[in-house]
Amino acid sequence: MRYHRIPDETVKRLPTYLRGLLSLSSEHQRISSKGLAEYVAVKPWLIRKDFSYFGEFGTPGVGYDVVKLINHIKQILRLDGVHKAALVGVGNLGLAVLKYAGFKAYGFEIAAAFDIDPAKAGKKINGVTVRHISKLGSLKRRRITLGIVAVPRDAAQETADAMVKAGISGILNLSPYHIEVPKGVKVISIDIAMYLARLPYYMPTTLTAR
Amino acid sequence: MRYHRIPDETVKRLPTYLRGLLSLSSEHQRISSKGLAEYVAVKPWLIRKDFSYFGEFGTPGVGYDVVKLINHIKQILRLDGVHKAALVGVGNLGLAVLKYAGFKAYGFEIAAAFDIDPAKAGKKINGVTVRHISKLGSLKRRRITLGIVAVPRDAAQETADAMVKAGISGILNLSPYHIEVPKGVKVISIDIAMYLARLPYYMPTTLTAR
Repeated sequence: MRYHRIPDETVKRLPTYLRGLLSLSSEHQRISSKGLAEYVAVKPWLIRKDFSYFGEFGTPGVGYDVVKLINHIKQILRLDGVHKAALVGVGNLGLAVLKYAGFKAYGFEIAAAFDIDPAKAGKKINGVTVRHISKLGSLKRRRITLGIVAVPRDAAQETADAMVKAGISGILNLSPYHIEVPKGVKVISIDIAMYLARLPYYMPTTLTAR
Repeated sequence: MRYHRIPDETVKRLPTYLRGLLSLSSEHQRISSKGLAEYVAVKPWLIRKDFSYFGEFGTPGVGYDVVKLINHIKQILRLDGVHKAALVGVGNLGLAVLKYAGFKAYGFEIAAAFDIDPAKAGKKINGVTVRHISKLGSLKRRRITLGIVAVPRDAAQETADAMVKAGISGILNLSPYHIEVPKGVKVISIDIAMYLARLPYYMPTTLTAR
């Protein structure tokens, strides 16, 4: 089932709510929008508006059923199963991704890893054997359609092209480069400098040293 | 100068515009909202609305002056200078941050790095000498108020507490943990699992394998 009318901005916040709810679920059966708001740093009215898009209105004075909400959000985000993902680029960032403990809670599993360096091929990291980038075509057979780009900037576009050719239709781009993909392929980019760039605006003292 | 009336959602997009404009500036003197929209994957009307918050309206048929816009956005984000930042946690992710090439364009410089492992103290990476976490207090003297958390999940909160005590007032949190900070300290978190969690919603074929 797809929920076509949920705005992108709401979809962006759903994983944040999910993370908060998963974390609260060990101690709370029900949570108010205000209680969740404090936990995830989103305004209560925005939480109520976001949840209303998929028919969760809570009960006044009682709040939302935490487990029901978790299952509903997982269903919307299609996280109610196991998603295998392929990593391309096994440098420091790629290694951090392979060793990252946060994927499992959302049903993600890094099931394949590729690098251009032949010396890395065959190495096993966290149960995943690194293969040479020339073997990317194996993803089609394994029906892996989710990919993570962790290569240097200059290699980002050609890596994305090769991934799309291998059947990848969803890319998490961790390289600081804007990649172009054909229609039907979704890219979400994280450039950590972009996030750092938002901080000074909010900081009480100026950092600027000319 | 601060622009108090710019909404958070606009502030979130400004670094994306800035990155696009910096990249376009070598070839274009002027750009239309439509041209920029295609480049940064934000709707033209939203770009025009965002720019209108700080008085940039462009000229119909001519577009925006790219260099003027870059300078204006840098000024708003207070990126018109050098910002020194401290990294805490020199594991794979921390190493990736230290070697990351994308900071300089926005005036950021990782000027200090700390780790709890005594064996890492004294090592020099990309010109930065790693110090033991117990030396965090030195940030106050060096007037470094921007920090990056790249420690394991279980150490995130105590690391943030120690950073705040050392005078840090802006934190980029790269650990998959919701950290609590006193009022006046701004935290921006990147949990890569949260971004990956948005992809299946948009993907044409289901990845779900139960």
